[in-house]
Amino acid sequence: MKIVVLKFGGTSVGSISRIKNVARIIISHIKKKYKVIVISSAMSGETNKLVKLTRQISNNFTPSEYDSVVAAGEQISCSLIAGRLNEEGYLSRSWLAWQVPILTAGKYSYSRIVNINKNNITKYLKKGGIPVLAGFQGINSENRITTIGRGGSDASAIMVAKFFKAEKCIIYTDVDGVFSTDPKLAPKAKQIKQISYEEMLEMSSLGAKVMQPHSIQDARLNRVDIEVRSSFNNKPGSLITKKKNISTKNIIRGVSFSKNDSKITLVGVKDRPGVAAAIFEPLYKNSINVDMVVQNISSSKKETDLTFTIKNDDLIKSEKLIKKNKKIKFKKIIIDDKVSKVSIVGVGMITTPGVTFRMFNALAKRNINIQVISTSEIKNISFDR
Amino acid sequence: MKIVVLKFGGTSVGSISRIKNVARIIISHIKKKYKVIVISSAMSGETNKLVKLTRQISNNFTPSEYDSVVAAGEQISCSLIAGRLNEEGYLSRSWLAWQVPILTAGKYSYSRIVNINKNNITKYLKKGGIPVLAGFQGINSENRITTIGRGGSDASAIMVAKFFKAEKCIIYTDVDGVFSTDPKLAPKAKQIKQISYEEMLEMSSLGAKVMQPHSIQDARLNRVDIEVRSSFNNKPGSLITKKKNISTKNIIRGVSFSKNDSKITLVGVKDRPGVAAAIFEPLYKNSINVDMVVQNISSSKKETDLTFTIKNDDLIKSEKLIKKNKKIKFKKIIIDDKVSKVSIVGVGMITTPGVTFRMFNALAKRNINIQVISTSEIKNISFDR
Repeated sequence: MKIVVLKFGGTSVGSISRIKNVARIIISHIKKKYKVIVISSAMSGETNKLVKLTRQISNNFTPSEYDSVVAAGEQISCSLIAGRLNEEGYLSRSWLAWQVPILTAGKYSYSRIVNINKNNITKYLKKGGIPVLAGFQGINSENRITTIGRGGSDASAIMVAKFFKAEKCIIYTDVDGVFSTDPKLAPKAKQIKQISYEEMLEMSSLGAKVMQPHSIQDARLNRVDIEVRSSFNNKPGSLITKKKNISTKNIIRGVSFSKNDSKITLVGVKDRPGVAAAIFEPLYKNSINVDMVVQNISSSKKETDLTFTIKNDDLIKSEKLIKKNKKIKFKKIIIDDKVSKVSIVGVGMITTPGVTFRMFNALAKRNINIQVISTSEIKNISFDR
Repeated sequence: MKIVVLKFGGTSVGSISRIKNVARIIISHIKKKYKVIVISSAMSGETNKLVKLTRQISNNFTPSEYDSVVAAGEQISCSLIAGRLNEEGYLSRSWLAWQVPILTAGKYSYSRIVNINKNNITKYLKKGGIPVLAGFQGINSENRITTIGRGGSDASAIMVAKFFKAEKCIIYTDVDGVFSTDPKLAPKAKQIKQISYEEMLEMSSLGAKVMQPHSIQDARLNRVDIEVRSSFNNKPGSLITKKKNISTKNIIRGVSFSKNDSKITLVGVKDRPGVAAAIFEPLYKNSINVDMVVQNISSSKKETDLTFTIKNDDLIKSEKLIKKNKKIKFKKIIIDDKVSKVSIVGVGMITTPGVTFRMFNALAKRNINIQVISTSEIKNISFDR
């Protein structure tokens, strides 16, 4: 069987007319002789409405009940799609996680898919049916509804593609694909035809909002090729695939950036083993996501400066946690809540001389002061304001 | 175990503050040492919203998908209640039909409960938990979601009360109980303390909107005592129970009426077997609910007049169906779209002389012309305008 997995995001199923459009897209793949498995998100706005209800009931709403409430969003949308396909004359039905079943492990709201029973769906595909699966949900060993914390419906699609050995996994969304940078800010931004998982990971965690980093990581681990494209037009999308499938001719794949970041520098930290762990433990325990961490070699043997970045929203809480942390000592804390992060990403970059220089030169020409620099194999980050 | 089943209707869970109130009511029963099983309807308005979505997708939306969509309403509300009970410090969780499981038979949207697996819920009750079941839903032998056509969540509550041999089944709603007639129209209307299933059936099918007739019929067949009361105050409700539990001192239990009725009379219908069936078959096939049917003995041997009533909304369609029905012949059709039905209901009535006379006399005094009369064992109907 030539299987294709089609995943539709919230805006793609955000209204009745959008759902009718989704049915047409699905049918176009059926006409190309593919067996199609559909994964649906909740209609846009629906999950937020449900989350709001739970918060009004309790600030500390029970996670198992939370998952059961929010899973209702996908339950509704997948039936609407199947019903529309029926209306168009195609055999189709919805499948909820418990009906497949899709088994998950881990905590409520942060579950991950560990197994998908293929029997029922395979039989249905052989009959010529189009199964429409509710994304974002699973069940656990206690027969209760769970939700996929990391990547949501994208993760559902990737795991379904993996288990069914799908030829393609197409993520339909409201953007045309992955761009070299934000097209709203830089009209010169180009759509990227092909990008490796690794490059995409750097791009996405740095602000390219096409897909959640966790889903890309899932795709990378499971070797699932993903096409990201728009359900609002018929333009070809961007392929996210293995490094070896990709031309390294283009040294730089894209420019990524983030806003709303804050930078904290601890000056004069004792330079001994365990200090960094002591600094970050309370932040981790309070679910504060630390992005970059930079520590240069000590000028003296006893002290060093440590800089890290967090989202602005977490700044006040982080500052408090650092100041009341009795396990660490430092001379001064410097806080800057107006920093931006700019990264250039590309697999061929590190082996090509001059890229780093050209980036720094471009910033210097515009009189932008670089505060912190960090690099990985395929990215080059600088912090400025 | 002393079990009580508490069912909360749509307005009782219609907002966050109403749900918090529902949790308090549940806790009040727990404090009286009852084991409580809760059945929840969807938040008021929610089911209508979902139904509207399906209609926008197709006028002929697939019934199996329809049931899966509308069942989401109860899925949300039962988790919100359980979450609130957790917040108040009580062990509670939601149970969806597939988790219990609640098995149904029959068509989608018109299913009826045939079995409820007691094991899981009983274990949970013994642990001290408060199970909150999603009303209105079941699963069928194909492991798909169904909905209970006749009586909805009320029917769920009654069947749960039956299977668990509950001491009481309390239906919480937005009225104080069953009244002798509509208190909005007749300020003298009294709340009825006790009423038999049979009387309640007559009252409810004739316009008392406290409970759906099908649920009362279910309760009658399964000998489940029902208390109907308000979740908006703490007043005692009305008990619906077996005839023998009830005093027959009060001859007349109540006065029931309907508005928005239309009357169709076919004059000069051939009086031979099968004519009535031929008249009503197309109405039945078009889901038009015929209420009263009256046919007097023929004045001639060959012809008779037949009168029936329907809702005003169905009048135009019914008239068309009658006129194009080639299986029947009649001389004239008389239509009256401004009729009302008034009924007096009471188990002691038929054996008590003078009741019928007093009703007709009361109408005559106010110069109200009676058009059609029909009686059952415990009711006395007259039609007037």
